Amino acid sequence: MNLSQLRSILTDLEAGRISVDQALDRFKLLPYEDLGFARVDHHRALRHGFPEVVLGTGKTPDQVAAIVSRLLLDNDNVLITRSGPEIHNKVREVAPEAEFHPQARAITVLRDKTIYGIGSILLITAGTSDIPVAEEAAITARAMGNTVETLYDVGVAGIHRLFSERERLSACRVIIVVAGMEGALPSIVGGLVGVPVIAVPSSVGYGSSFGGLTALLGMLNSCASNVAVVNIDNGFGAGYIASLINRKTS
Amino acid sequence: MNLSQLRSILTDLEAGRISVDQALDRFKLLPYEDLGFARVDHHRALRHGFPEVVLGTGKTPDQVAAIVSRLLLDNDNVLITRSGPEIHNKVREVAPEAEFHPQARAITVLRDKTIYGIGSILLITAGTSDIPVAEEAAITARAMGNTVETLYDVGVAGIHRLFSERERLSACRVIIVVAGMEGALPSIVGGLVGVPVIAVPSSVGYGSSFGGLTALLGMLNSCASNVAVVNIDNGFGAGYIASLINRKTS
Amino acid sequence: MNLSQLRSILTDLEAGRISVDQALDRFKLLPYEDLGFARVDHHRALRHGFPEVVLGTGKTPDQVAAIVSRLLLDNDNVLITRSGPEIHNKVREVAPEAEFHPQARAITVLRDKTIYGIGSILLITAGTSDIPVAEEAAITARAMGNTVETLYDVGVAGIHRLFSERERLSACRVIIVVAGMEGALPSIVGGLVGVPVIAVPSSVGYGSSFGGLTALLGMLNSCASNVAVVNIDNGFGAGYIASLINRKTS
Amino acid sequence: MNLSQLRSILTDLEAGRISVDQALDRFKLLPYEDLGFARVDHHRALRHGFPEVVLGTGKTPDQVAAIVSRLLLDNDNVLITRSGPEIHNKVREVAPEAEFHPQARAITVLRDKTIYGIGSILLITAGTSDIPVAEEAAITARAMGNTVETLYDVGVAGIHRLFSERERLSACRVIIVVAGMEGALPSIVGGLVGVPVIAVPSSVGYGSSFGGLTALLGMLNSCASNVAVVNIDNGFGAGYIASLINRKTS
Amino acid sequence: MNLSQLRSILTDLEAGRISVDQALDRFKLLPYEDLGFARVDHHRALRHGFPEVVLGTGKTPDQVAAIVSRLLLDNDNVLITRSGPEIHNKVREVAPEAEFHPQARAITVLRDKTIYGIGSILLITAGTSDIPVAEEAAITARAMGNTVETLYDVGVAGIHRLFSERERLSACRVIIVVAGMEGALPSIVGGLVGVPVIAVPSSVGYGSSFGGLTALLGMLNSCASNVAVVNIDNGFGAGYIASLINRKTS
Amino acid sequence: MNLSQLRSILTDLEAGRISVDQALDRFKLLPYEDLGFARVDHHRALRHGFPEVVLGTGKTPDQVAAIVSRLLLDNDNVLITRSGPEIHNKVREVAPEAEFHPQARAITVLRDKTIYGIGSILLITAGTSDIPVAEEAAITARAMGNTVETLYDVGVAGIHRLFSERERLSACRVIIVVAGMEGALPSIVGGLVGVPVIAVPSSVGYGSSFGGLTALLGMLNSCASNVAVVNIDNGFGAGYIASLINRKTS
Amino acid sequence: MNLSQLRSILTDLEAGRISVDQALDRFKLLPYEDLGFARVDHHRALRHGFPEVVLGTGKTPDQVAAIVSRLLLDNDNVLITRSGPEIHNKVREVAPEAEFHPQARAITVLRDKTIYGIGSILLITAGTSDIPVAEEAAITARAMGNTVETLYDVGVAGIHRLFSERERLSACRVIIVVAGMEGALPSIVGGLVGVPVIAVPSSVGYGSSFGGLTALLGMLNSCASNVAVVNIDNGFGAGYIASLINRKTS
Amino acid sequence: MNLSQLRSILTDLEAGRISVDQALDRFKLLPYEDLGFARVDHHRALRHGFPEVVLGTGKTPDQVAAIVSRLLLDNDNVLITRSGPEIHNKVREVAPEAEFHPQARAITVLRDKTIYGIGSILLITAGTSDIPVAEEAAITARAMGNTVETLYDVGVAGIHRLFSERERLSACRVIIVVAGMEGALPSIVGGLVGVPVIAVPSSVGYGSSFGGLTALLGMLNSCASNVAVVNIDNGFGAGYIASLINRKTS
Repeated sequence: MNLSQLRSILTDLEAGRISVDQALDRFKLLPYEDLGFARVDHHRALRHGFPEVVLGTGKTPDQVAAIVSRLLLDNDNVLITRSGPEIHNKVREVAPEAEFHPQARAITVLRDKTIYGIGSILLITAGTSDIPVAEEAAITARAMGNTVETLYDVGVAGIHRLFSERERLSACRVIIVVAGMEGALPSIVGGLVGVPVIAVPSSVGYGSSFGGLTALLGMLNSCASNVAVVNIDNGFGAGYIASLINRKTS
Repeated sequence: MNLSQLRSILTDLEAGRISVDQALDRFKLLPYEDLGFARVDHHRALRHGFPEVVLGTGKTPDQVAAIVSRLLLDNDNVLITRSGPEIHNKVREVAPEAEFHPQARAITVLRDKTIYGIGSILLITAGTSDIPVAEEAAITARAMGNTVETLYDVGVAGIHRLFSERERLSACRVIIVVAGMEGALPSIVGGLVGVPVIAVPSSVGYGSSFGGLTALLGMLNSCASNVAVVNIDNGFGAGYIASLINRKTS
Repeated sequence: MNLSQLRSILTDLEAGRISVDQALDRFKLLPYEDLGFARVDHHRALRHGFPEVVLGTGKTPDQVAAIVSRLLLDNDNVLITRSGPEIHNKVREVAPEAEFHPQARAITVLRDKTIYGIGSILLITAGTSDIPVAEEAAITARAMGNTVETLYDVGVAGIHRLFSERERLSACRVIIVVAGMEGALPSIVGGLVGVPVIAVPSSVGYGSSFGGLTALLGMLNSCASNVAVVNIDNGFGAGYIASLINRKTS
Repeated sequence: MNLSQLRSILTDLEAGRISVDQALDRFKLLPYEDLGFARVDHHRALRHGFPEVVLGTGKTPDQVAAIVSRLLLDNDNVLITRSGPEIHNKVREVAPEAEFHPQARAITVLRDKTIYGIGSILLITAGTSDIPVAEEAAITARAMGNTVETLYDVGVAGIHRLFSERERLSACRVIIVVAGMEGALPSIVGGLVGVPVIAVPSSVGYGSSFGGLTALLGMLNSCASNVAVVNIDNGFGAGYIASLINRKTS
Repeated sequence: MNLSQLRSILTDLEAGRISVDQALDRFKLLPYEDLGFARVDHHRALRHGFPEVVLGTGKTPDQVAAIVSRLLLDNDNVLITRSGPEIHNKVREVAPEAEFHPQARAITVLRDKTIYGIGSILLITAGTSDIPVAEEAAITARAMGNTVETLYDVGVAGIHRLFSERERLSACRVIIVVAGMEGALPSIVGGLVGVPVIAVPSSVGYGSSFGGLTALLGMLNSCASNVAVVNIDNGFGAGYIASLINRKTS
Repeated sequence: MNLSQLRSILTDLEAGRISVDQALDRFKLLPYEDLGFARVDHHRALRHGFPEVVLGTGKTPDQVAAIVSRLLLDNDNVLITRSGPEIHNKVREVAPEAEFHPQARAITVLRDKTIYGIGSILLITAGTSDIPVAEEAAITARAMGNTVETLYDVGVAGIHRLFSERERLSACRVIIVVAGMEGALPSIVGGLVGVPVIAVPSSVGYGSSFGGLTALLGMLNSCASNVAVVNIDNGFGAGYIASLINRKTS
Repeated sequence: MNLSQLRSILTDLEAGRISVDQALDRFKLLPYEDLGFARVDHHRALRHGFPEVVLGTGKTPDQVAAIVSRLLLDNDNVLITRSGPEIHNKVREVAPEAEFHPQARAITVLRDKTIYGIGSILLITAGTSDIPVAEEAAITARAMGNTVETLYDVGVAGIHRLFSERERLSACRVIIVVAGMEGALPSIVGGLVGVPVIAVPSSVGYGSSFGGLTALLGMLNSCASNVAVVNIDNGFGAGYIASLINRKTS
Repeated sequence: MNLSQLRSILTDLEAGRISVDQALDRFKLLPYEDLGFARVDHHRALRHGFPEVVLGTGKTPDQVAAIVSRLLLDNDNVLITRSGPEIHNKVREVAPEAEFHPQARAITVLRDKTIYGIGSILLITAGTSDIPVAEEAAITARAMGNTVETLYDVGVAGIHRLFSERERLSACRVIIVVAGMEGALPSIVGGLVGVPVIAVPSSVGYGSSFGGLTALLGMLNSCASNVAVVNIDNGFGAGYIASLINRKTS
């Protein structure tokens, strides 16, 4: 409840247009309603200036479609993460323009395609197995109004290949680096550029990679100072925070 | 070695002003020199557009002073982290304007005090014991040309206090949150704002806080999507990346 | 063996109604018998004043039905946890009033529906995926004679929603909070109320949530002092101890 | 801000006694003030119905005395944890009745000694080394208006000794059990009684006790259903939540 | 190669019955041969005085049968662990008296049924789910010539039941205790008796039981001094070492 | 309370020599008394057939002396672990024959020097740094009436040295092996002999030895079946259980 | 780009055969091209003097065949790891001489069968279950021009068997040891020989072997100084580095 | 005992120069003697072809001097690790040429300074704090007859500096890389060269570097195939195995 809403209620009260009890009632009119299985917060979009995000995991296609249908009343763009073709089929019934991105396992409904970003967001992966995580970040960033570029499979072992793209690295506003195994790539990228680097450990690896833990620890201990880290395989979070960093501030 | 330098060498060669061997020699003239105990990379400032940073830990006051003295030939600003009054005394001999910040355990030599930030950086701590880490972030951000605001000791148990500052939260460009114990504060702050949140786990706590590991894991698993994380007690890194996020892009 | 039983044996001995050897034999008549696959302790209900609980996992439907049948000789209420429809079908043959609760994966036979609680027990979850664990707690608490209320899907990211229910929070006698990921919700709830909070980490999450470990550690390090913790996904335990806290002490 | 305060502001506004802007200003008058180093929340006592608690660690004796002095304006009882004789000496200057409890490393100022508890709280330790943690719990519970009983050094190896006190166990309203090493005592106590058991892992042990982690894990996996757990060595938290469980309602 | 064999070779050499090179060759005649997929050490039985043990996991029924067939040339008894009915069917073709023990997932060929034990070995489990591990220990101990007794499902929550069997506990020569979850039972048994207790953590449990790790750590930190521990679910190892402890030493 | 004591009470009751209430009172005369700081259980020696053990850590010399003095009323032998010369000086005042063993940090009062063991106990260490742990085991075993032999510093790197002592290995009744670092020695010893091996991980090592954890895990996963494990640095426990294994059984 | 290539470009420029821009273009002709899904670095073979390696996991048979087809333009030998018969079938279409090694799950195309090694590489495993990992190392070493010998199933429990092969151990240039469970075998082998030992922890084991972690830690803490370690189950890496150690240096 | 020694004994026996018992006695004359506190194995040097190594930790200066004195009877070179000036002073009394290397905390007595290496060993560190570990490796490699080169402080953040030394990297026979924090440097070095890389994780770092564990895991998961790893801070081990790799094989 922001200041102007509050002032409006108080002014109505002062003017005698409403009683004290009616004022209290309006205070209680909280901005969410109950769909039975999940509360949809219509004000989150206003608050964040971004589309609504629905986590597909653990919801039936019908549940997702119902949520999406409800969200589109107040939002232009909706992003559904961790979903599949069954959900897509149901969502298309309520939003025919819904697109499915199989590698990212994401569905987007994008009615507002304005570019809100200052510059471009560059996505880098160490290997080919890291691409699905990077694609989730890419879909998220595009749904939030960003230009996205990619530079995949430029891992540490072939580091000279990264150097040849150095100019491209410096031209973007923020970089997302996805890497599994030892997770060293964000440190190297961070050492080459002067923009923020969002590091995403991936669960790619075996043995003592411990499902991404080794990559995660490596990234947290990066000797490059411009690296911040999100959870293992959290492409969505990386795309989200990179979009915030890249966002024009009026 | 950038393109224009390369072109200049090649042009000299083409023009016959230098021989092939001289061209090769100039390729080898790499931009660093050896002080004996640590290589000082003069080009890092150019590359990053930021002051040089010296880690005080494990170096003698004389070594730090020698490095600082050398760095000031090419840099306006120098930041020395994890240092103490002994180092400060020696550094003052080569840079009389050097300031010591006891809580942050940092020394700054700031000759360029231009503001390079778009907006302000807000520093929040959960408790009073988290303040030293936050102060290291604050000193770093100020040395990099930012306006810094602070909001200390507004932890989860007294969460209603955070709400009263909500407008202040929304007015800044990036927020740094330092918290120990369960590390929940960044999630809550993240849920309240639409700007990037850099979370710093602190080693404050006991028992199963495991020296900050619990806070670190909590922050990585934040259900707020605008949170990225740096290493335990890494105030410097948080200040550094927040400065990059806040930096004007011409 | 309680004091009155002991006194009765001794009195019989003193009165010459039994011999020393007969007294010793009666000492050995221990209060349990053997069903072959599991010992059923008929005295546990007397000791605890609560229904018998059967763990469904690792038992065949026939075994569960046999145990339930035996327990109902001496108990009014029986709760079967971690079970499914096959077990329910068999149990209904020996107890037609047996009810199956699919979300909680629990079966209840409730012949005594007296309310034994002082006040109500409030169940809160951070997300929709935490609901099955909460439902196990709810079923347990109801089987133990409590009034149960629920407030689901009010996680940290949308914390303002929790505030609007603050009066409801304060009106209950004990609160159970189920949360996965960073597990911060119990801390926030704990900071808002003055009643005991039982925190249940759920295994909801991915990557460095480590199957609920991160939530568990977060809850143990809560900066709210009124939070105690049970095992990951242990809805039953939370419902049980909350019932004990809420129990009238004549 | 509770409903009656809100209604009072609105009534003043409706009655024309204050303007809309004055109403907004009163909304902003938040119930805390700043002592410079730590915010003291005067309303917490009202909210919780309990004395204020000050963590001694990391504060100077003068800082603690200043906080205590301020708190005593609005509170009858103050508890200072993790403190020592130096702090005690300073606190006595502002509160002559302050008492120091060396084993618990706690200071209490108790002006209200009313008993608020339903029954008594029983404190059990496995060994003599666990007593300081138990004493912190005892001091906390007493400061919160409870009758406290103790049963120290009745560990698992000599379990027959616990049995002889079984009647005493059953007579209390809530039990706190402190144990290090394998942490099995809460399970055993839990199996003997029908009241809530708060388990406190202590850092007593060596080798693979890992500073209390083994005891903590053991307690979380207790096969007794009436056991909930707090952080390692967290005597204060155990005393606090036990007091809430034991508190008279209405 | 033992002393008498060595002396025999040397005596032959001294007597001129063999040459130096023949002596060297006999030294090299090492007591094993190669079946292609696994080396069978015929001398292990002599060395240990016990039957041969074959690990079924990762071998085809034909491979196991071939190994068993070869072993029975020099051994009376063979034990096959971690096996199933398919292996049993094949083994019966080479050893018709082979018995399959489904709960223990073990096969035994016992031609020598002499009792080699001093007293009896008692097997205790905390719950019914621990029985398969205990049965593997029982089968092993019987195959090694021991009298085995069992006392299943006497866990910590119902500790009074254990007390009624105290005389039986004291009458055996060594006790094996299998327990999952918090793993407290060996400590309690250890406190009641004066014989060695072999503790076997089982992987029974969920959440923070971490597949038996919690039980393992609990057992290693037992405050009873007569407890030694083997690997998680290692019923075979427990039965083996208990048999060695119980072995008559002529 | 054993059967004969019980029968004696019952017989007195039957004979009219005592009343029912007197019988109940005698039941309550539990066999321990309170010294204020620690309960001394006089019956433990009877129960275990072994001397009393006092843990020196965390007790003042005066407290230890008082406990020892009390114990010697009913026991011949007392062992004080984890102690030093200050405790020794005080204990000598109540027991002049008390001996201090500096390497083992143990004090013994041995009035009964009967040999109760079947054979000898052999102590093996991998390195010289493991000797203090082995000596604690040796002192314990001697205090419990065993003949002890030692074979120190025969680690894995020089494994051929172990082979030359093979006959000595086979001649003992039970072997204790202390090793740090990778903890492989118990596996090797176990493979050479047919007697029980008690493995003691020591905290000797650095880096990823993690204070003995690596040795502990290695020993638990030994491929020799005759190895059981005790806690890190737990020489006392190893000596205790080895003594039980070696004990004559009437 | 090596010195001679650079000199050649510069000489062409100096001679006026190319312009500055043409020189820059040739600098940019980086030695890799894009197949769409993975970048193939043709220069890696030159740089390393070894065949190209393709990781089969996560690639379709068609993708692998396309990569192999491209690689064979510039390379004699190709090794495909972690693959199966489906990949083999497709690869045979582009390289009929491709061989599949089922135990190692590897495919090799070997057109150059020159021996590049100084001596032989010896492969040792502790058990039969470790053989697949060892075979991957063997295939790798053979593809890199080495003579490979094997000594399988000579684990710690039967250590005397290892001794009989001691001369064979000493005759090779480098040894690879694969072991699971406690991972002690590399220490023992290391103590017997004076050549480098590459230790490979395998995921063979159960319970507290933690998927190879225990073996890994054991090997890292080896008391033999000639042991270095690679990742769990990393047979390929062990074969690769052993080949480098064994490589003739002109 | 090697073959020629054995043949010599047997030949003496065959020739009647010794009896069977004398032959057995000579077999028993094992090649070590007892100094009381540590067994010195004179044959280790013969076996390994390298100097004797004494671990200084946990030994008194007098003990070290006695061991060194004894070793120099049969060895030319002795290396004492983890020692200090006190030990050096004592060792100089028995070996005046003993040199102390303070950074490496090592003492060397080098009477044989022959170069046994094929090429040179290159030592690289990521930072200045890693130098002590690298120096221990350097001292070890020099004591084993190698030419050693160093390239210190070329960490990941300044990776372009490493590239300028690429020719030097390729010219050596084996590389040792010491790095703390994220431990990424060995991967990068490994990707640049075709020689074996021995990676040494250092305990340099803070927070989630966990005393070198993060660097260790990163190195084990290196995507460069020519990297093998030793224990945290194990400079000695790295120098030792690198020397074996570099050793001429006649």
